[in-house]
Amino acid sequence: MGKCVNHPDRETGYICMKHNIYFCEDCMECRDPDIYCKFRPSCPIHFITKKGFESSEDVPDKEECIVTFQPGGKKVAVTPGTNLLEASQKTDIYINASCNGKGSCGKCKLIIESGKADSEKTSLLSEKENERGYVLACQSKIFENIIVKIPEETIEKKLKAAGMGETATKKLSGLVEKIEPIVEKVPLQLDLPTMEDTVSDFDRLKRQLKKFGYDTSKMSSNIRVMRQLTESVRNDEWKVIASLLWKKCSSEIVDVSPAKDQKKSFGMAVDLGTTSIVVYIVDMSDGAILSTASGHNRQAACGDDVINRIVCSEKDGVKKLKKMAISTINDLTKQAISSINADHKQIESIVISGNTTMIHLLLGINAKYIRREPYIPTVSEFPIIKAGEIGLKAAYYAGVFVMPGPASYVGGDIVSGVLYTGFNQFEDLTLFIDIGTNGEIVLGNNEFLMTAACSAGPAFEGGGIRWGMRAEDGAIEKITIDSKTFEPDYLTVENKPARGICGSGMIDLLSEMLLKKVIGQDGKFQIDTNHPRFVLFNEEPAFIIEYADNIDSEEDIIFTQSDIKSLILSKAAIYAGFSILLDQVGMDFSSISQMIITGGFGQYLNIEKAITIGLLPDIEREKFKYMGNSSIAGAYMALLSNTYRQQAIAISNTMTYLDFSSNNAFMEEFTRAQFLPHTDANLFPSVHTD
Amino acid sequence: MGKCVNHPDRETGYICMKHNIYFCEDCMECRDPDIYCKFRPSCPIHFITKKGFESSEDVPDKEECIVTFQPGGKKVAVTPGTNLLEASQKTDIYINASCNGKGSCGKCKLIIESGKADSEKTSLLSEKENERGYVLACQSKIFENIIVKIPEETIEKKLKAAGMGETATKKLSGLVEKIEPIVEKVPLQLDLPTMEDTVSDFDRLKRQLKKFGYDTSKMSSNIRVMRQLTESVRNDEWKVIASLLWKKCSSEIVDVSPAKDQKKSFGMAVDLGTTSIVVYIVDMSDGAILSTASGHNRQAACGDDVINRIVCSEKDGVKKLKKMAISTINDLTKQAISSINADHKQIESIVISGNTTMIHLLLGINAKYIRREPYIPTVSEFPIIKAGEIGLKAAYYAGVFVMPGPASYVGGDIVSGVLYTGFNQFEDLTLFIDIGTNGEIVLGNNEFLMTAACSAGPAFEGGGIRWGMRAEDGAIEKITIDSKTFEPDYLTVENKPARGICGSGMIDLLSEMLLKKVIGQDGKFQIDTNHPRFVLFNEEPAFIIEYADNIDSEEDIIFTQSDIKSLILSKAAIYAGFSILLDQVGMDFSSISQMIITGGFGQYLNIEKAITIGLLPDIEREKFKYMGNSSIAGAYMALLSNTYRQQAIAISNTMTYLDFSSNNAFMEEFTRAQFLPHTDANLFPSVHTD
Repeated sequence: MGKCVNHPDRETGYICMKHNIYFCEDCMECRDPDIYCKFRPSCPIHFITKKGFESSEDVPDKEECIVTFQPGGKKVAVTPGTNLLEASQKTDIYINASCNGKGSCGKCKLIIESGKADSEKTSLLSEKENERGYVLACQSKIFENIIVKIPEETIEKKLKAAGMGETATKKLSGLVEKIEPIVEKVPLQLDLPTMEDTVSDFDRLKRQLKKFGYDTSKMSSNIRVMRQLTESVRNDEWKVIASLLWKKCSSEIVDVSPAKDQKKSFGMAVDLGTTSIVVYIVDMSDGAILSTASGHNRQAACGDDVINRIVCSEKDGVKKLKKMAISTINDLTKQAISSINADHKQIESIVISGNTTMIHLLLGINAKYIRREPYIPTVSEFPIIKAGEIGLKAAYYAGVFVMPGPASYVGGDIVSGVLYTGFNQFEDLTLFIDIGTNGEIVLGNNEFLMTAACSAGPAFEGGGIRWGMRAEDGAIEKITIDSKTFEPDYLTVENKPARGICGSGMIDLLSEMLLKKVIGQDGKFQIDTNHPRFVLFNEEPAFIIEYADNIDSEEDIIFTQSDIKSLILSKAAIYAGFSILLDQVGMDFSSISQMIITGGFGQYLNIEKAITIGLLPDIEREKFKYMGNSSIAGAYMALLSNTYRQQAIAISNTMTYLDFSSNNAFMEEFTRAQFLPHTDANLFPSVHTD
Repeated sequence: MGKCVNHPDRETGYICMKHNIYFCEDCMECRDPDIYCKFRPSCPIHFITKKGFESSEDVPDKEECIVTFQPGGKKVAVTPGTNLLEASQKTDIYINASCNGKGSCGKCKLIIESGKADSEKTSLLSEKENERGYVLACQSKIFENIIVKIPEETIEKKLKAAGMGETATKKLSGLVEKIEPIVEKVPLQLDLPTMEDTVSDFDRLKRQLKKFGYDTSKMSSNIRVMRQLTESVRNDEWKVIASLLWKKCSSEIVDVSPAKDQKKSFGMAVDLGTTSIVVYIVDMSDGAILSTASGHNRQAACGDDVINRIVCSEKDGVKKLKKMAISTINDLTKQAISSINADHKQIESIVISGNTTMIHLLLGINAKYIRREPYIPTVSEFPIIKAGEIGLKAAYYAGVFVMPGPASYVGGDIVSGVLYTGFNQFEDLTLFIDIGTNGEIVLGNNEFLMTAACSAGPAFEGGGIRWGMRAEDGAIEKITIDSKTFEPDYLTVENKPARGICGSGMIDLLSEMLLKKVIGQDGKFQIDTNHPRFVLFNEEPAFIIEYADNIDSEEDIIFTQSDIKSLILSKAAIYAGFSILLDQVGMDFSSISQMIITGGFGQYLNIEKAITIGLLPDIEREKFKYMGNSSIAGAYMALLSNTYRQQAIAISNTMTYLDFSSNNAFMEEFTRAQFLPHTDANLFPSVHTD
């Protein structure tokens, strides 16, 4: 206990943890910021809590409840009535919350160890779970101090990211002939000034640049450079390295340093996915990928899909989402750059590829109207931004090129994909799909590019599926079912004990269940209800993939009728998307010369089984191409070459966006496709379900 | 007394005045910033002093002396050995210190009221002054607590600035035909988005701009605009005002606001003089000058001339000088803008005109090499800067055009002068001089512009002259001497009791003393030493202009032999400058078709008398033109018109700079001109001194 800073005669237990200063009850009450805490104006984050507890963001009410999260013991003080998901979001604890607190995904399970929460009843928890004290964090309000435990399955694990690893350099090498970084380093020996040659330092610099063929009439600079210039030019006998940031129609001198201080210049390519973020650190002298890192987008705490993220940004402010994305990228940058013993200030060129919502939120731009008819993004083509302006860990002046995105639901990640796969340069028709958290399709060739997003939903990434999960350690990614015994045989990511099932596993499973007649073409169960693998879960039929005992779990891993329904809706949406795009240009699947599949998901996809369930069209198998994570690959190409950056802009401008949300033909086709593989069996001649 | 924040068991008298937190002796001693004051990192200016005293900048030694300045009672704690000038600079008290503490100008007089200072003996103080306790602040170190009084003459008074007042609008009206602000406001009605027209907000904006003929391919923007765009476009039914900042070869959309929030847009022209600063607030719709303000450049506390300012910036950091200039401008802006009941955020275009050193210091650019051979400035032509980047009171995005300056000693103020007077467009030869704190000359026509600075010194602004002063209230600005009685008859600024003599008064005086034979052509006194107006001051002959009794002063206002010498050196430098420039192009004074005189000084200049002393050449009187403050006039023109801004750049690039500092011909001519009017009487046929 200490004395109140405003009323030195009073003892009090309120303490500003940042400043180690006490406040009394009156000061807490009045809330006048000047009295409440004088240091507030100079103190952007302000921690105040009752003494003895760790910290709480922003100002708590007088009455507050303390939540302790186990394992780890992190404490947070919140106002009574706060739910446990909100409480976790006030700390740096990230737990799965696919539906952003709607109570519909059932991912945010916590176990109450001490104290009581006021939890809504939910069918998403089993009886066993209820008995063990499981609650859904988002459905549990707290009115007293409480200790909760985060179970294994709720903590996010290391993600198996696509298109990564040691082979990255090899895979991408040779794609770029001439390296043109966004920030070009130009070594210059300036003329020494004399009484006969008294032009200013800046003019002297420009004169030399002009000698080397640079168009200095279109060259600008900024106040930072002018302030450093005087000493920079004189520090190494008028030998300098000028850094030129290339913009659309001009360039800016963003740095001038003594030649002797010169360090290697790095670039960074970023794939900003809704689910996961990947960064590549690139040597800008030869294009070699020196290190990579990947991790979950921290925004996942605000929901799995872009709609939930936007909802969250409207509720809590876009800054919160911006911060989450930036901090994820910065942590990955730190990890990747320290692994090569370099300094993040050596990163001078950056390309970021992501969907339209992710890019808006990253830049702190309002994304509100992306989810409202007529679905208008704020910006499609972005000016070159400086890293320091948005808080990215890099040289302050590092040039950031953001992949342009033609529409609210077809973004820069898809433009990246087209850039990388390059089908926009050929006469033959290509059908391109990126299956990530959404499903974006591009149909086109060197004459046109038509694109659409087909609201596949997050099912293939585990969203809305009881045991669905991302391709993390322990996710079932391949599965077969014995036609006689119905015994499943599966493989998991990294061969860890099964924790759930990811997208490729689900396709396998659905296909196997269909072919082995566990379910019919309508998706309904037709297996003998007495079979040991058949079970009723909340009065719903379900198939047991793995028994709890085999994996040291409390619960069997099951696949329910609802899960099947979700998956069928997703695959139907994608297939309908293909059909309608082709319809629009008066073609059908036979006109396609190749079908490119990209996305984190695509990496593990079994084409044959995807055709069996009617996700992919029944065409010649050799027409299918897996291209892995094309978003990061395109970003890498744009990082190294201005030709590619300009091509990306051209691709984005060429794309015609077709909106399915109010398209009747799409709705019809979508309905027709809600069958395995399709209501029109003629479309899938090679699939035999009987 | 209170408890130490680090050692709560100890009472102490040390207090951080900003945070109201106490520290004990140990904490003061150790100086570890973490222990010393935890708040330091978030606290740029850190006040610590013994309790009971007002404040002291930065960290004092354990032992300290308290200086109290009267009138006002402002207190400051300083380390023993600090001189009184340095002590005053730690507060917001500004006292005259023309020589920046060298002890040579004698301006920084203070009276010691209590306590003792260790003062150097100086001939710049009279015996009477010594008796009354006068000291020079810069020559007086303190080792104990002291109370000093700032006498009337040391406090800066309101300056009579040239080219100002109600007539400003009239004088400048009609100069600009078509208004092209740096930040252009474009009202736009955007198309409402539909499902058929889903381009992004930003593309929608650019599309409309394109319709109005703007080249959007060269248009960029920034992250601030993109963050405000979403709501701005929707706030007034897609009616917006876009603000375009015009740069060299491109434009930047710097603001987009709902049309209904639109306010009047203002511009600001700034004359950043070494001595005084003038601002004009301009209505950008019609160019009307709505209000003006002027004041002393606060940097004056660091010396009268540019050299002293640079020395100070090297010693104390350029940030200090930057802050002084910015705060002077901001105060004037506040004054001018509040007089028209407007908000400073309505200022969206700014032009600043000043000499090269002033501009460097204002922008926080190192000016070190301006004063070192070969005299190289860091920047001559400045990119458009945003007001917010340098801390100017205006819209954050307000575009700042800085008048380019061709050389270290011929700056943007002279370019402004040429732009305003326009002689660069005529075939006839013009000789242009700006007599401010320095004396810059331009010779030229529509084919060439040759320029030089002639180190006239600050004599004409009162520097180095015992009773010299600027054209403030009470300055003698006109004077005649009776040829028989030698009684002077004078006028003062605002008819206030005489406090000293300003530039135009000195020219009058020198001319009168010469013509009435108080002195000879060599400047030596030849008046009867028994004449009551003759006096010896520190063993030096002097002329009494006014008796102390008549003006309720302690001292007679006198003009000494040294003063005459200083003035002769100044006028000789200027005349030599004229001659050498003409020599360089093989011409003489007869080739000149007009002679333009500008500068704050020029306003009150008596041409005839200036010729008599040999400051101006003896040519036809009708060739002389007074043009007032041409620096602010040129800034005003550039503010309103891009044509003029581009012309200013062209003028600066056309100028050839001639350096006199190592020019033998100049030195010879300078020596020859140190006579009244000149050693070669043929050059001044109309001057009759006998």
